[in-house]
Amino acid sequence: RVNPDLASERLAASFSVELLTASLDGGAERTRSRRAVVEAIENDPVFSQENQYFQSQNERYEAAVRRAVYLQKKIREMGWTENGPEVQYVNRCLSGDIALILHRVFMRSISMLGSDEQIAKWIPLATDYQIIGSYAQTELGHGTYLQGLETTAVFDDATQEFILNTPKISAMKWWPGDMGRSATHTVVFAQLYVHGKCYGVHPFILQIRSLQDHSPCPGVTVGDIGPKMNFQHTDNGFLQLQNVRVPRENMLSKFCKVQPDGTYVRWGSQKMNYFTMTSVRISILSDEVILPLKKACTIAIRYSAVRRQSKLKPGEQEAKILDYQTQQQKLLPQLATAYAFHFIKIYLDELFNRGYQDIQGKNFDSLPELHAFSSGFKATVSQQCTSGVEICLRACGGHGYSLLSGLPSLYTRIIASCIYEGENTILLLQTARFLIKCFMAVSAGQPVPPSVTYLSSVKPGKCPAKDKLDFLSPEIYLKAYEQMAIRLISSSAAKLQHFIQSGVDEYEAWNQCTVQLEKAAKAHCHYITVKNFVETVEKLDDEAGIQKIMKHLCDLFALHGIFSNMGDFLYDGYLTAAHMDLVTASYLDLLAVIRKDAVPLVDAFDFTDKTLNSALGSYDGQVYQRLYEWARKSPTNQQGNPAYGKYLKPLLQNTLSKL
Amino acid sequence: RVNPDLASERLAASFSVELLTASLDGGAERTRSRRAVVEAIENDPVFSQENQYFQSQNERYEAAVRRAVYLQKKIREMGWTENGPEVQYVNRCLSGDIALILHRVFMRSISMLGSDEQIAKWIPLATDYQIIGSYAQTELGHGTYLQGLETTAVFDDATQEFILNTPKISAMKWWPGDMGRSATHTVVFAQLYVHGKCYGVHPFILQIRSLQDHSPCPGVTVGDIGPKMNFQHTDNGFLQLQNVRVPRENMLSKFCKVQPDGTYVRWGSQKMNYFTMTSVRISILSDEVILPLKKACTIAIRYSAVRRQSKLKPGEQEAKILDYQTQQQKLLPQLATAYAFHFIKIYLDELFNRGYQDIQGKNFDSLPELHAFSSGFKATVSQQCTSGVEICLRACGGHGYSLLSGLPSLYTRIIASCIYEGENTILLLQTARFLIKCFMAVSAGQPVPPSVTYLSSVKPGKCPAKDKLDFLSPEIYLKAYEQMAIRLISSSAAKLQHFIQSGVDEYEAWNQCTVQLEKAAKAHCHYITVKNFVETVEKLDDEAGIQKIMKHLCDLFALHGIFSNMGDFLYDGYLTAAHMDLVTASYLDLLAVIRKDAVPLVDAFDFTDKTLNSALGSYDGQVYQRLYEWARKSPTNQQGNPAYGKYLKPLLQNTLSKL
Repeated sequence: RVNPDLASERLAASFSVELLTASLDGGAERTRSRRAVVEAIENDPVFSQENQYFQSQNERYEAAVRRAVYLQKKIREMGWTENGPEVQYVNRCLSGDIALILHRVFMRSISMLGSDEQIAKWIPLATDYQIIGSYAQTELGHGTYLQGLETTAVFDDATQEFILNTPKISAMKWWPGDMGRSATHTVVFAQLYVHGKCYGVHPFILQIRSLQDHSPCPGVTVGDIGPKMNFQHTDNGFLQLQNVRVPRENMLSKFCKVQPDGTYVRWGSQKMNYFTMTSVRISILSDEVILPLKKACTIAIRYSAVRRQSKLKPGEQEAKILDYQTQQQKLLPQLATAYAFHFIKIYLDELFNRGYQDIQGKNFDSLPELHAFSSGFKATVSQQCTSGVEICLRACGGHGYSLLSGLPSLYTRIIASCIYEGENTILLLQTARFLIKCFMAVSAGQPVPPSVTYLSSVKPGKCPAKDKLDFLSPEIYLKAYEQMAIRLISSSAAKLQHFIQSGVDEYEAWNQCTVQLEKAAKAHCHYITVKNFVETVEKLDDEAGIQKIMKHLCDLFALHGIFSNMGDFLYDGYLTAAHMDLVTASYLDLLAVIRKDAVPLVDAFDFTDKTLNSALGSYDGQVYQRLYEWARKSPTNQQGNPAYGKYLKPLLQNTLSKL
Repeated sequence: RVNPDLASERLAASFSVELLTASLDGGAERTRSRRAVVEAIENDPVFSQENQYFQSQNERYEAAVRRAVYLQKKIREMGWTENGPEVQYVNRCLSGDIALILHRVFMRSISMLGSDEQIAKWIPLATDYQIIGSYAQTELGHGTYLQGLETTAVFDDATQEFILNTPKISAMKWWPGDMGRSATHTVVFAQLYVHGKCYGVHPFILQIRSLQDHSPCPGVTVGDIGPKMNFQHTDNGFLQLQNVRVPRENMLSKFCKVQPDGTYVRWGSQKMNYFTMTSVRISILSDEVILPLKKACTIAIRYSAVRRQSKLKPGEQEAKILDYQTQQQKLLPQLATAYAFHFIKIYLDELFNRGYQDIQGKNFDSLPELHAFSSGFKATVSQQCTSGVEICLRACGGHGYSLLSGLPSLYTRIIASCIYEGENTILLLQTARFLIKCFMAVSAGQPVPPSVTYLSSVKPGKCPAKDKLDFLSPEIYLKAYEQMAIRLISSSAAKLQHFIQSGVDEYEAWNQCTVQLEKAAKAHCHYITVKNFVETVEKLDDEAGIQKIMKHLCDLFALHGIFSNMGDFLYDGYLTAAHMDLVTASYLDLLAVIRKDAVPLVDAFDFTDKTLNSALGSYDGQVYQRLYEWARKSPTNQQGNPAYGKYLKPLLQNTLSKL
């Protein structure tokens, strides 16, 4: 029952799909374990996403809460540990379509920022959903700029309480998930005032809804912020506070505390706040950003091997659209990108784990690098994956635009990742600030973290490539990327210096360089991604052709980057126009090479049909049959026509006599 | 009640907004007339779009049918003519959120392709909605490639009927608007067979639903194709036909006919089919493509002048986000693009009208040029406007992601314009084919249409610019664009020749050049857009500063194009790296200049708040207040919580005793 057009693609695979899957999973044992979990979840009707595309916001929300509650039970039943790999697999196969995600952030923040007593009191209640938590940081008027938060917490020594207020409309908490309709409690961030003095933003545990009837607590106005581009299943909420009192014990106090007399005491490092954000930015990349691109590639590439349209030669059968160079040029670079980012995520995890070990040994030296990398990669990976998903959607023509393809919901969800957890432009500028500092340090002969020592490379003359095959050599293209990144960073630094020396004040000079600084930060991340892909390929065994096909993908990723950003490479003459012709030729050749393995390469991502939830992307390639079956299930075909009786019938009722 | 942050922007305008609006409308008289129509429509509750963001697919559909039926009445009442400017204004202010649009295409196709008798029979019925029509061309398995359609119409001399069939699942009609739930009739395109011989695709009038009870006619299976990324108000449908018979008279026969004995007769020009597509591609640009970008710019720019975030200097008030260079770099090029395309639409209309006059005089010479231009500009304008709307959405951070901002629905709708009426890549390749032909003709000294005579320009040496101000001279940047377009077209032609001369067969050679051909077609359209902007600015009076500000926008559009496509300009050395530094400097300077007039420049588009339907983009800038008010109206806040009783209450009921 597999469409012969897909079956033939699989027969022609130049490598073992099963081995590549195991390699992506980190071993065959993990693949087996993942599949077992996926099976346990997918066979359970509570977790079915079958009707998702037809559901209203209320239906999505209800189903998501049901899943969250039921999953907790399932985890117990199966004996999975709270943060173990199985729960990761579950999240992967539920595609995040589950409620009470912010409850986890609520728990994490109490665990990280709370005292031992606070942890002992709240965590057991939260673990069993005896309270439901949220995380109220963002306000209507303030997102990424936390210092600007306007919610206040004023200490009242008389009652030993904090009085919480959102003093104006822009101070209202806005966006927190699970808060609009579900949460009973939240961690709320507010400017702490003691005896008239402001101590900055601090977290407080606050009850917002009655445990008896779920009505808002006195002084609390809470509700849902209304429909969004996606996340219909999440009750993102608003919260207004009017003189709401919480006991002194509710300020999270692992690192600081207000004593009964109002004395403010701080201990531990404030820098650890960075670390939470760093960890979240890296942790979302996998499921919320890279996974959607892998899915979009799977859907679009399988469909393109089944869809036939027009003829490559007159007289022949209509061609698979994947055989057109323009279609390859759309999809195959996205496929290479999905692999490149799969590997960069492993790189970031390692960087993070090393940093975390240092920190546990009270060495905070790696924090700036970790912060810069998590910011820059969150931004570049989310940006490129979002644009990749859009390309996949459009590459499927009209059918890609149907919700039933699965592509629109991937897009409307992934685009949020460019905004949440730090807006991408601001994040890139933070990376740029780190790079400029490192560049200055390198210029002054000071040491820098290993990841940026390349900034001290001596400027080479011209690229030595003479032939298009030379551009399949990683040393050749890596040097070009390195050179380009150094140039963009150094020229931004020079421009900044120039402004400052000519009397422009430092902040204004920075603002006037930001367009170029953003570009420099992207170039750095791009270079590191290519470098890491090359190093990953080198480490692979050439088992069953895997290293070979990964090398092709790595080359494609690298050359596509040069082809698409030609100006940055031509600018200083390191690459010439003649080189660009060679790059273009090699790049177009690679499209034809990888096209042959395109279907097996997406098969290796090993998505089940239920996880993909796409009429276009299923394993069997029965595209038209499935589109038709799913469309017939649509409520519009099950219910009566709401406009006929009222508006159409009166117009049509006398027509018959006139025909 | 206008937010002072917006009021101050308006006070600082360097030009008269009222005069610019009149200039965009083509005169103050037209502005008055447009506003009167908008008022008449917006004050009518039937046309209110107020609750749109909260409605289900069924509610959207019902409201859209109601509007369509009611609008017909209104048009009569007001004495507006069917295709007059008033109906255009209505469409503009309803943002296409109305049903029975395909009914108009049904009527247009009968008028253009039907015989006088057919027109006399069907058009009066259709005019009064006594029948409701659709246009069934696209199939599940075939879109842009019309020759591949699989629906058949076999002539039966015995009964003097055509027997219509969709012989396999991929032959099913799929996507036609108004067909899923509304239409009683449709024009269906099918391969005509007479006595076993196929005569290609022809249009037939077919009844699909009973005029008595709206049930499908015998042999007809019809329904809705299910949810899409947008267009919830439209019942895009599917249609299966099993031996459905229509009388011989139902084949539209202005240009060809099957006689009673089965003789096939053709007269008139088949090329006229092109002309319908050409006209549709140009006509959608205004309301479906350029208008959404203007709206997105209005919303994002007004919001960016109100939203304050972070500080440009320590100690100061938080800055308007529009004062950050990176925000300017996102939004202002989109604003310049909206103006550039406003003017290119006027250019295309003039080209089309001249061509149409020629055609009425039986001169078909301009068809290839018109076809190439309508294809290329449909593709480039829809592509750039789509990406512009996405940039605007993301530039509004989290609030842009709320449906209440109005931006998500602009995006999910405009992206369809990249796919419908011809997939953009295919269209660009058609433009490329025309350009290659013209280039060959020019090389052989043969005449070509005036719009492409530039292809014969002699290759100049190097760009003569010496200073950043030189790049504000249109001759300087126009020459660079011209040079770049010629190079991309000529090098594609050379590559194609090279392949063919080295023995690659012609079709394969074409396929192997398509990535570069697509780029060449884009370069041509980009050049023409800049050139037309320059010529438009030259023709403006410098009344009240309008020419001056338009000149700035034109410069920005041109320099942004060079800055963003650096490689194409650097490649052949016409511009050098030193030139690029000058371009960058001039471009960044322009951002700061145009930023001052950014709000007045979007005010000049003259959208009412109701048309924008955006909590972020209203004229008064009361962003937070409106977001909050609208969110409270959301059904999620009006209805009970569907998950509380079933899933949350059981968890929470014993918690109180433990706290």
